[in-house]
Amino acid sequence: MTLSLSVAKSHCQPWPGLIEAYREYLPVSESTPVVTLLEGNTPLIPVPAIAERIGKQVKVFVKYDGLNPTGSFKDRGMTMAISKAKEAGAKAVICASTGNTSAAAAAYARRGGMKPFVLIPDGYVALGKLAQALLYGAEVLAIKGNFDRALEIVREMADSYPITLVNSVNPYRLEGQKTGAFEVVDALGNAPDWLCIPVGNAGNITAYWMGFCQYHQDGKCDRLPKMMGFQAAGAAPLVNGKPVANPETLATAIRIGNPASWDKAIAAQSASQGSFNAVTDEEILDAYRLLASSEGIFCEPASAASVAGLLKVKDQVPTGATVVCVLTGNGLKDPDTAIKHSHAQFKQGIPADIKAVAEAMGFE
Amino acid sequence: MTLSLSVAKSHCQPWPGLIEAYREYLPVSESTPVVTLLEGNTPLIPVPAIAERIGKQVKVFVKYDGLNPTGSFKDRGMTMAISKAKEAGAKAVICASTGNTSAAAAAYARRGGMKPFVLIPDGYVALGKLAQALLYGAEVLAIKGNFDRALEIVREMADSYPITLVNSVNPYRLEGQKTGAFEVVDALGNAPDWLCIPVGNAGNITAYWMGFCQYHQDGKCDRLPKMMGFQAAGAAPLVNGKPVANPETLATAIRIGNPASWDKAIAAQSASQGSFNAVTDEEILDAYRLLASSEGIFCEPASAASVAGLLKVKDQVPTGATVVCVLTGNGLKDPDTAIKHSHAQFKQGIPADIKAVAEAMGFE
Repeated sequence: MTLSLSVAKSHCQPWPGLIEAYREYLPVSESTPVVTLLEGNTPLIPVPAIAERIGKQVKVFVKYDGLNPTGSFKDRGMTMAISKAKEAGAKAVICASTGNTSAAAAAYARRGGMKPFVLIPDGYVALGKLAQALLYGAEVLAIKGNFDRALEIVREMADSYPITLVNSVNPYRLEGQKTGAFEVVDALGNAPDWLCIPVGNAGNITAYWMGFCQYHQDGKCDRLPKMMGFQAAGAAPLVNGKPVANPETLATAIRIGNPASWDKAIAAQSASQGSFNAVTDEEILDAYRLLASSEGIFCEPASAASVAGLLKVKDQVPTGATVVCVLTGNGLKDPDTAIKHSHAQFKQGIPADIKAVAEAMGFE
Repeated sequence: MTLSLSVAKSHCQPWPGLIEAYREYLPVSESTPVVTLLEGNTPLIPVPAIAERIGKQVKVFVKYDGLNPTGSFKDRGMTMAISKAKEAGAKAVICASTGNTSAAAAAYARRGGMKPFVLIPDGYVALGKLAQALLYGAEVLAIKGNFDRALEIVREMADSYPITLVNSVNPYRLEGQKTGAFEVVDALGNAPDWLCIPVGNAGNITAYWMGFCQYHQDGKCDRLPKMMGFQAAGAAPLVNGKPVANPETLATAIRIGNPASWDKAIAAQSASQGSFNAVTDEEILDAYRLLASSEGIFCEPASAASVAGLLKVKDQVPTGATVVCVLTGNGLKDPDTAIKHSHAQFKQGIPADIKAVAEAMGFE
């Protein structure tokens, strides 16, 4: 059988992964070996129940990036970082991460035939958080030092050995992540009025802004969105205007006190006339439950910060506006929070007859 | 702002969800209210390391249905079942399930404004397995009876009350699931030579066969694949030719002793000149780890049965054949198996200096 791209399907050619889809906008050449899991092309889902809470004929969508291959937006950056590492001849990659970055790094590195190393502080995390990276075949090293020391060591290792650093300082990460903005514009036909996004290390808000600006310059959209960044109240350096020494929030993916992309995030907010706001853990959990139980969408707690934030500043949304909230990760990454914080209706010990069951269901 | 579908993007219109994409092939009308999370359109990912183990210029792809909105192929059937339930005026739906079906039913029912009820046997499952359904807002009722009794009761409830049954007996489920076959053909430009698929309740193999036949009749492909069904050795009624009283396998999603779609699955296997084979739990785990650590793909253990089976019967694969293995669910659904069965490389207590780390990494 000869394989050929189908022309039978009118609505869609098979998605080739984001590097092939957006090759002209990315720092790759014909000689770059593309390491891909067909990431990107995630759905932009209307969320009418959330729009209804705002009123004013506002349209709200979520960009559900938890449906990337390893379950988070990190795959967008990692396909670029790993492809470029492979192009440069790297045999191994390294990062300091206990979450989504380590999973993405491990999956793409192994797919690209490279060895993934993950450095973490000793005793810092439960093994569960690393389950995914371990199954992908990462070598995890726990050092006698804190997370900042782990970050220093991975930088030093990348300087001294033939290992590529794929932490957020890797410039190709943001290049890949900016494709999220391309997809939003491609789906809507223009940029939205607002882009609401969780802000931790501030790389993703920086990348989305890069993407919108690049598409705007290229005539793919005729305007730019307000960039609305939302931080957890216990980890809100950009809102407070100063680093937070001991950031605290249950939204672990944005529990960062001193963001790597601080200046670029401020530039994006300022140029777009957007703003930074803080949301409490309780507001995050409310949005997390609302997304699941009204819209059928299960995201990571940190992801829900974008929707929590939108609901918090809803009076500022212009009438008739189109708003996109970025959901950065899949809720399946954090089942413990789902169990602990669902308003579960769980009735036990019901007699096995139809009358008793009907009664328990409220039908009698 | 007026929203319009973009024409700027050459390769792909925004995916509208599978009912809109395949409306002409599905039992829906203009008056069917479409309840969708933009399911379907999941990637068909090449898996070269697995192909290499087979040799003979065979091409192997996995259909990674774990990237559906609730993390499994059940979303394909549920968008149909829930849309039709809503069309019929149902205010509630019910199923007996402890796994992927309950999650999909809960998400789609709530999105469609209906109440989801899930019946389970008392003391049967850990709450963790139900975390997703609970967060989506299912009402879970545990009865004093076994799983078969729960199945009887949900049928009786659906007969006696204004509740729609969305267990696998719901005929719209298979209609939705057959779109997996459509997507495979659309991506490859023809049907593959082999379709390898895990078989538990035997609904999915039935649905894929329906889809291939329908597309073939319509001229979308000029041939049909051999349907290769794989069961877990401890739960292999179709291989043994008789029901299994106490099915046992760690691949819980296919731990079924008496499949609902038995006859239809046999018909598909027979008409396609395919076969049923059993794979042991150890073979399933080997394939599960291989997919993660060589290809970067994290699936449910049950999903890996399709790849385990392909590797088991690799001598039967024709030279140059194109093979598609269906991966039914996301590995994030079952983190415990990942932790327990990864061949983890986890080193602790490493001094926080570059020399010690380099040594631990094998660079000194």
